Amino acid sequence: MRTAVEGDRLSETFAALANSTRRAILGRLAEGHATVNELAEPFAMTLPAISKHIKVLERAGLVVRGQRAQYRPCALDAAPLEEISTWAEQYRPVWEARFDRLDDYLKQLRPQRRARAHDG
Amino acid sequence: MRTAVEGDRLSETFAALANSTRRAILGRLAEGHATVNELAEPFAMTLPAISKHIKVLERAGLVVRGQRAQYRPCALDAAPLEEISTWAEQYRPVWEARFDRLDDYLKQLRPQRRARAHDG
Repeated sequence: MRTAVEGDRLSETFAALANSTRRAILGRLAEGHATVNELAEPFAMTLPAISKHIKVLERAGLVVRGQRAQYRPCALDAAPLEEISTWAEQYRPVWEARFDRLDDYLKQLRPQRRARAHDG
Repeated sequence: MRTAVEGDRLSETFAALANSTRRAILGRLAEGHATVNELAEPFAMTLPAISKHIKVLERAGLVVRGQRAQYRPCALDAAPLEEISTWAEQYRPVWEARFDRLDDYLKQLRPQRRARAHDG
């Protein structure tokens, strides 16, 4: 059952990242803590709209909030991003094979080019 | 505007990956081409259900399909997964800082442990 739970968490992380505003919020938080007000400002969004995005990020474990009653600053927790990276990296051999095939193709072309240069 | 378009594509990739069945399909396709029938079998899903998932993966550019009329085998295109990995990797300094802090903490603990062993 553990795999299923982990799978669900991965789905939640991917779903949280499937929005450019939420990714921009993470980018801002990578520079340091910020309050919801501070986050809302550069994005020219209403507080309820930004709060909704932050709640999605919190549920996915990407944002943690301080306990100081009035400000509750938001902070980035990059741990789920490491999981995403690890998940994607398992496909590295597949995408590198693409380049290997391209490289083989270019190597095949080279002698032909030389031969053609000789002909000309 | 290019960034916005790239951002949308990234959102589409993340959304496509936010489902454990779709990620399992990609895992299967990493081993080699498969027809929709072959894909449906291990997942114990109906053909329309699996077809719907494959369409989401196709739209996100993660799956390409052959042109042979009857079978149209599915193949994995890992290029969007490399984009995901590159995007996540920009946060590596943040998650590594977590471990650095943990490491500092453990280093702080060690002399205390030795002192305690001396006391005992």
